[in-house]
Amino acid sequence: MKQVAIGIDIGGTNTAIGVVDREGNILYEKQPQLTTPQKKENPTGSEKISDDLLSDYITLLALEVKSAIEVVEKINPEIEVVGIGIGAPNANYYTGTIEHAPNLPFVGVIPFSKMVQEKFPDIKHIKLTNDANAAALGELIFGGGKEMKNFVMITLGTGLGSGIIVNGDLVYGADGFAGEIGHTTIGRGNRVCGCGASGHLEAYCSATGMKRTVYELLAKNNSFESELANIPFNEMSSKIVFEAAERGDKLAKEVFAFSGELLGEALADTVHHLSPEAIFLFGGPVAAGDYIFKPTKESMERHLLPIFKNKVKILPSSLKMGSAAIVGASALVWKEMEKLGM
Amino acid sequence: MKQVAIGIDIGGTNTAIGVVDREGNILYEKQPQLTTPQKKENPTGSEKISDDLLSDYITLLALEVKSAIEVVEKINPEIEVVGIGIGAPNANYYTGTIEHAPNLPFVGVIPFSKMVQEKFPDIKHIKLTNDANAAALGELIFGGGKEMKNFVMITLGTGLGSGIIVNGDLVYGADGFAGEIGHTTIGRGNRVCGCGASGHLEAYCSATGMKRTVYELLAKNNSFESELANIPFNEMSSKIVFEAAERGDKLAKEVFAFSGELLGEALADTVHHLSPEAIFLFGGPVAAGDYIFKPTKESMERHLLPIFKNKVKILPSSLKMGSAAIVGASALVWKEMEKLGM
Repeated sequence: MKQVAIGIDIGGTNTAIGVVDREGNILYEKQPQLTTPQKKENPTGSEKISDDLLSDYITLLALEVKSAIEVVEKINPEIEVVGIGIGAPNANYYTGTIEHAPNLPFVGVIPFSKMVQEKFPDIKHIKLTNDANAAALGELIFGGGKEMKNFVMITLGTGLGSGIIVNGDLVYGADGFAGEIGHTTIGRGNRVCGCGASGHLEAYCSATGMKRTVYELLAKNNSFESELANIPFNEMSSKIVFEAAERGDKLAKEVFAFSGELLGEALADTVHHLSPEAIFLFGGPVAAGDYIFKPTKESMERHLLPIFKNKVKILPSSLKMGSAAIVGASALVWKEMEKLGM
Repeated sequence: MKQVAIGIDIGGTNTAIGVVDREGNILYEKQPQLTTPQKKENPTGSEKISDDLLSDYITLLALEVKSAIEVVEKINPEIEVVGIGIGAPNANYYTGTIEHAPNLPFVGVIPFSKMVQEKFPDIKHIKLTNDANAAALGELIFGGGKEMKNFVMITLGTGLGSGIIVNGDLVYGADGFAGEIGHTTIGRGNRVCGCGASGHLEAYCSATGMKRTVYELLAKNNSFESELANIPFNEMSSKIVFEAAERGDKLAKEVFAFSGELLGEALADTVHHLSPEAIFLFGGPVAAGDYIFKPTKESMERHLLPIFKNKVKILPSSLKMGSAAIVGASALVWKEMEKLGM
């Protein structure tokens, strides 16, 4: 029998499902449309779904998982599904619940693992954590962190997520929610974070934060000569900033320099807590390469105690952009199997 | 046989030695004068000692430890010394070395454990870590953290030290130096830290940092009516500030309010990393009770993500001021024994 795990990534807009083997190969994946009819009538996502509709959602999700398994079984009848790993915002590893997730259409505390378990009574290992923690496990089991015992994963997207590996395992903390480095307070500025607080790292150094920096700098410098001055806020991305930087756009370069300066300062704080071997960066801005890595590394080194200087690597994640979430979610299962010696 | 461990605390000015049993009781303790003659001629401590003198220092230390054991043996001939635990600044648990400690009279990287081991070839467990890590282990094995798996220990003294417990064990990180929260950068101010960098937490919220705040506030407000305005910088202490606050001194109260505001902000960053069950505070300022705990807790809560609010306790350490260092150092041995199932 070939063992496989189901990796599920639940995001604010999409749900992705993958069948992943123990080497991290994706045998099959899909992104089904799982929003309920009522949800569809509220395309802004401002309405939360009721208990009935939640139950419908889980039923649909389970059907999609079953059909994914069937597809893989057609190719290889010898597969054994050993577990389901789920990555979702505000997901609690200990309790298997998703709690007050601001970007998901679920109200309150949802016993997600339990509801999925009821649909798959024969599958033993159903595990859940937040998306960035899942990515960190993916890096540990399949990626650049394979040979490491202590590292930190930073995901740069709409938000700034993080997952912390200490002594070869993910840190969940006392309540299952550890690893929210995006919501640490940085030294400069009072930009409003997605969580409502001000001055959080996420508001500056997520992909969205870097986009905001474009307009802060445009406003500050009145830089009409930058090509970024021709692009509306809602169309801006770290890819556009990178391409402008490549063409020599000064403001674009300054966006990365500023973001790297603040990210480096924040990562130094993380090093002072945890002394990791490496910090992996994942997400759109990573494609900007040295434009973002160089100022980040320089700033981090400048803020480190002498005993930590020139020891901590800042590396691009080796997980693939499109599939990291489901591969990471599957890693929850493989880590569990490893712990059980299976 | 009654098992005991030797706890040694190596500080900038004093060395303390204790014989500690498995319940954390100190059977005997002393603070021998171990500085070499050459060192004594340089009372400023600015001169570092040479290799020869280091060897003398270790010899003297070993003699003092042996005499301490002999004293305890006279009372109880049935004792068995199972290990030696050493707490020292910049001490590396993995390598057993003390590395570039700024406040100690040793130059460079000292193979401290190895040198002590040579003096005690029959003692199996000789372990070393920094003083705040040792205190965290003391809290875990003997103190308020006994029933906890995840907590953080903050020591407020000349510096601001910290030790991090994750999943019931101390976090050493990739290189053995994790837990330097005192050197994270806080949002406000550019006060120079003991390490030379600016804006570090330690420069504001250690016992010394609070003392500095007294004079910053005196300078800012020209508060000649405060009783603290009559006390020279070199005589100030958190005890004096506390006593003034108790008598209603406004500036004294403001010192704690300001320190708590910044400490709370920094501890929120720590919670966002680690999600601990509790944060223990240890050191002189802890005696100020609510004057420091209340603003710290309020500020921390204000800076936390909703999922962490009202979950994390800030507690006074249950270790005793005078003996925490040697009890903590001995905990290194007891933790080792626990890991080995002994």
